[in-house]
Amino acid sequence: MDLGTIFGIVAGLALIVGAMFLGGSLSIFVNVPGMMIVGGGTVAATLITFPIGDVFRAFTSAWQVLRQPRRDPNDVIKIMLRLTNLSRQQGLLALANIKTPNRFLQKAAQLIADGAEEEMIRNTLRIEIESLKHRHAIGHDVFRKMGTFAPAFGMLGTLIGLVQMLQKISDPSSLGPAMAVALLTTFYGSLMASLFFLPIAGKLKARTEQEVLTLEIIFEGAIGILENNNPLIVYEKLSSFIAPTRRVQMSMKALRST
Amino acid sequence: MDLGTIFGIVAGLALIVGAMFLGGSLSIFVNVPGMMIVGGGTVAATLITFPIGDVFRAFTSAWQVLRQPRRDPNDVIKIMLRLTNLSRQQGLLALANIKTPNRFLQKAAQLIADGAEEEMIRNTLRIEIESLKHRHAIGHDVFRKMGTFAPAFGMLGTLIGLVQMLQKISDPSSLGPAMAVALLTTFYGSLMASLFFLPIAGKLKARTEQEVLTLEIIFEGAIGILENNNPLIVYEKLSSFIAPTRRVQMSMKALRST
Amino acid sequence: MDLGTIFGIVAGLALIVGAMFLGGSLSIFVNVPGMMIVGGGTVAATLITFPIGDVFRAFTSAWQVLRQPRRDPNDVIKIMLRLTNLSRQQGLLALANIKTPNRFLQKAAQLIADGAEEEMIRNTLRIEIESLKHRHAIGHDVFRKMGTFAPAFGMLGTLIGLVQMLQKISDPSSLGPAMAVALLTTFYGSLMASLFFLPIAGKLKARTEQEVLTLEIIFEGAIGILENNNPLIVYEKLSSFIAPTRRVQMSMKALRST
Amino acid sequence: MDLGTIFGIVAGLALIVGAMFLGGSLSIFVNVPGMMIVGGGTVAATLITFPIGDVFRAFTSAWQVLRQPRRDPNDVIKIMLRLTNLSRQQGLLALANIKTPNRFLQKAAQLIADGAEEEMIRNTLRIEIESLKHRHAIGHDVFRKMGTFAPAFGMLGTLIGLVQMLQKISDPSSLGPAMAVALLTTFYGSLMASLFFLPIAGKLKARTEQEVLTLEIIFEGAIGILENNNPLIVYEKLSSFIAPTRRVQMSMKALRST
Amino acid sequence: MDLGTIFGIVAGLALIVGAMFLGGSLSIFVNVPGMMIVGGGTVAATLITFPIGDVFRAFTSAWQVLRQPRRDPNDVIKIMLRLTNLSRQQGLLALANIKTPNRFLQKAAQLIADGAEEEMIRNTLRIEIESLKHRHAIGHDVFRKMGTFAPAFGMLGTLIGLVQMLQKISDPSSLGPAMAVALLTTFYGSLMASLFFLPIAGKLKARTEQEVLTLEIIFEGAIGILENNNPLIVYEKLSSFIAPTRRVQMSMKALRST
Repeated sequence: MDLGTIFGIVAGLALIVGAMFLGGSLSIFVNVPGMMIVGGGTVAATLITFPIGDVFRAFTSAWQVLRQPRRDPNDVIKIMLRLTNLSRQQGLLALANIKTPNRFLQKAAQLIADGAEEEMIRNTLRIEIESLKHRHAIGHDVFRKMGTFAPAFGMLGTLIGLVQMLQKISDPSSLGPAMAVALLTTFYGSLMASLFFLPIAGKLKARTEQEVLTLEIIFEGAIGILENNNPLIVYEKLSSFIAPTRRVQMSMKALRST
Repeated sequence: MDLGTIFGIVAGLALIVGAMFLGGSLSIFVNVPGMMIVGGGTVAATLITFPIGDVFRAFTSAWQVLRQPRRDPNDVIKIMLRLTNLSRQQGLLALANIKTPNRFLQKAAQLIADGAEEEMIRNTLRIEIESLKHRHAIGHDVFRKMGTFAPAFGMLGTLIGLVQMLQKISDPSSLGPAMAVALLTTFYGSLMASLFFLPIAGKLKARTEQEVLTLEIIFEGAIGILENNNPLIVYEKLSSFIAPTRRVQMSMKALRST
Repeated sequence: MDLGTIFGIVAGLALIVGAMFLGGSLSIFVNVPGMMIVGGGTVAATLITFPIGDVFRAFTSAWQVLRQPRRDPNDVIKIMLRLTNLSRQQGLLALANIKTPNRFLQKAAQLIADGAEEEMIRNTLRIEIESLKHRHAIGHDVFRKMGTFAPAFGMLGTLIGLVQMLQKISDPSSLGPAMAVALLTTFYGSLMASLFFLPIAGKLKARTEQEVLTLEIIFEGAIGILENNNPLIVYEKLSSFIAPTRRVQMSMKALRST
Repeated sequence: MDLGTIFGIVAGLALIVGAMFLGGSLSIFVNVPGMMIVGGGTVAATLITFPIGDVFRAFTSAWQVLRQPRRDPNDVIKIMLRLTNLSRQQGLLALANIKTPNRFLQKAAQLIADGAEEEMIRNTLRIEIESLKHRHAIGHDVFRKMGTFAPAFGMLGTLIGLVQMLQKISDPSSLGPAMAVALLTTFYGSLMASLFFLPIAGKLKARTEQEVLTLEIIFEGAIGILENNNPLIVYEKLSSFIAPTRRVQMSMKALRST
Repeated sequence: MDLGTIFGIVAGLALIVGAMFLGGSLSIFVNVPGMMIVGGGTVAATLITFPIGDVFRAFTSAWQVLRQPRRDPNDVIKIMLRLTNLSRQQGLLALANIKTPNRFLQKAAQLIADGAEEEMIRNTLRIEIESLKHRHAIGHDVFRKMGTFAPAFGMLGTLIGLVQMLQKISDPSSLGPAMAVALLTTFYGSLMASLFFLPIAGKLKARTEQEVLTLEIIFEGAIGILENNNPLIVYEKLSSFIAPTRRVQMSMKALRST
């Protein structure tokens, strides 16, 4: 479970609601038609902008991102070193039998075991990586666009409220509360954008970068296996992807016996 | 028919009109001169910005995008595998006789059957893909620019209204309704941008990306045929373009008999 | 003559002026000091931003763009096919005698006839294309920057007007008209940006892209001549630059006898 | 210690506080709930946007940047020249014994001494450089995003204040002070963005660029050692990274005896 | 002396000051604390954003840009042709004796005369060009960031003024002048950005592009000398960098005797 996200949303909402409460009643911030304009308008514009399947996938992947733990890239390096040793001791064919939940690693191992040419393997794995980047980028884009539509529909709601208020200006005493209601949609739109849509787009982007890092390590490791590099060389190359302070140092012996 | 787009526009408009209705009469939101400034100004600025043919094509292609169904990239992979088998069994010349509504695939098959060099085929097909991307990008750009011109002319209309209102401030009771009318053009401009122009630009972009995906699969498939790869290798490469969860798995037997 | 541009400017101005007229007198929208701040300030900031020669060239090229007709890229393809046939029948030296108003094509033909190496010809022609793109990009940039300076000086003018108005607030009845005058500079700046500077920057960009398309066709055609490709191959490559629906189909016979 | 940063923050705050003081009491600018909305909301949105580890690292690296002195790239060049001479006199193996606090240089020397292939060394060092750029870019991004969240939550706080004020408009005399309080959150948000978050993001970016420059010099120097270039050639290449006016000129003799 | 810059600043200021004068007294636009907030705040934020040396260099290079005349790229081509002839007649060693104030040309000639390999020369000169681009880009960035900080601190000053004004709303007659004073900082910030910082950033960028053009011509000319091209070929390549209408045509004889 991604605690930062949960904490951020709860703490952010608590601060906002607390500030409302200090100034009086919470009920003056509730306006159902306003919520419908902002929420509904944002959803409507999003459904026009993106194919419905992309919107659905963006939300399911956001949900998964919150639930799945981050993977330590050091573990991926360890796995690639193990495969390097395996292939040097038992030949490339041994890679055909490995079991891993990571589809990309499975595919890479299968292609190597099948004896495909290096050029072709490089090509196929790069297409996998680029396609994943592209698909995930659509997910961020869905939330980022929702983060621009929400304030836009908030402003549209405020304009509707202002026009209605200004048309019946005869009673000046009602001016204040009417304007307060008109401003609520701007408030809803900005709150949704600043506390949900834009931050979640950011978190999805961070997760994609981390996932791509894993794929890049597997990619470079697979190339190392194909070129029959020794584990030390492979370790030096793969550990370059990680910040020096977070690298798991490995002794020569450990490298050979992983 | 693209249901998401239809639903989005209908639902978005229904919410906005409903909110207007709740606050009183709809008629206070109708101002024909204001509509002319925003709609006409946006069209005028668009005709200065783009060659008239580009504007025309942007609208016809938006219309086609709404009418045509999305194509499943798995089908394109299946076709490329069939051609791979065909060329391995009957030679490259057999590709000269295939019939397909896809002009790009037809051209690729024709070039292969004509015995053109791989370098030249790569070059020609890449020019096709890049030219299509470039032409479609103009289409998105037309709608994106309309999405920035509409609010700009909305603000110009509001400025005109404000200047006229402030000049005859003598009667304070008419101030409110006059300002309401002045705000209407801002409302029109923002509504057109947020519910039509910007979302449609987004949908066109999504469709282009899907179409380019099809072309990339055909391109890589054609290269595979030229390099006489076996169907398994071609399948592994082409399926990399699709998300793992949406790939149609194919058995070895199926691969050989497509 | 570029009719879209003329029509857009005339129609846009007509709509704006019409809306002013409907609301009363046109004269309330005329404020000579305000026009001087916005127009003069925009010109001043542009002269600081760009070397004076670049500003001058931007305006002359904008003028030329409006006057020159668009060229059909199919015609350029036809010319390149004719040169391909010529060089295959009479040798590369025959290209030395061709006459064409297109300086780029003239240079390409001259270099081929002079027997320069392919690498060197590629290099020289690519420098020509990139330099043209770069020079034209400065032209768009002049108008785009003017489109950001105009509203900025409009806002500066409004701030000056507001400060002057607020200092002598003693007479409340003069408040409205004074504020109307202050708003005029914002109106001028936005109108100039939305109806002139930004759209003209867009049109210049569209023309550049079309001109670059012509150069790219000549470039690829020249490479085809150097590599002694047959006209069919050259036609297939060059026609890839054009949208399928707009390509002029050519029979084999036509290809050989152009 | 980075004096510019300290001076900038102190001077900027002094000017702002001085301006507050000139206009009366400082206490009217203190509003604890407003500070909590802006500060807390910014932190909350940041924790949703970024993995918590990235936020933590951004702040620690900002702190380090302020404390560490800038390194003169001329010193790095001198070190690389010394290593060049060392390897030419005693062979590549001699590089195994060097001691340096710079992990990147240590790794490069180790790889060369281990006799790894040039292609593999290039690859590994480039991954190191790109990974560092990528990790540091996340640090800038944390501060840049905080610089957009702070004004957004400032505006949300002002909207909350305005709605509360407009609901109890009955007492017109309290309108002014209530609006003053509402505006405070916008003030807090803008001040935090303009004087802290955005400038610190800029300083982090400048430091990254300087650090990358060091790595690029080491990279090119290592390649020079691998290709057994003479010190003069290496000096000419490495000094190209530095502005001509800041290069330390070295005589032939100095080059050979570093 | 760059007359466009001088003229632009003088004319822009004259227009603004004229407009102030027409509306009454100039003195109402002078507010020393406001100037300190905007000017001082901008300087403070800039010193946090950039290392102090970079800020200093940005201003000195801006000053130099205004004082130095633009160089005609045709002259650079002529020099490169002269060197081409020199090296063809007297050998590459002759380049060791040339004298030129241009450090880049001096370095290129020295490297050629020293007999360095083409790959190494290309590499070194490209590093020089890219480093210069990078260093100059920091200079533009300093002014561009000042152009965003100035309006930001202008708005902060206005917020401070508004809060102070709203707190002592008891005397309505002082409301107008107080608000006028509050608006002044926004005016200062926008004026500084629109008439100084942003245009000067643009002019620095234009000068960098011109300087880079000179370096690119020298680079391509040096490569031509290394590859022992004849002057005609070198002329054709180098003249491609210049707009056709501004090229100095050279006869064959002139080419050989430069």
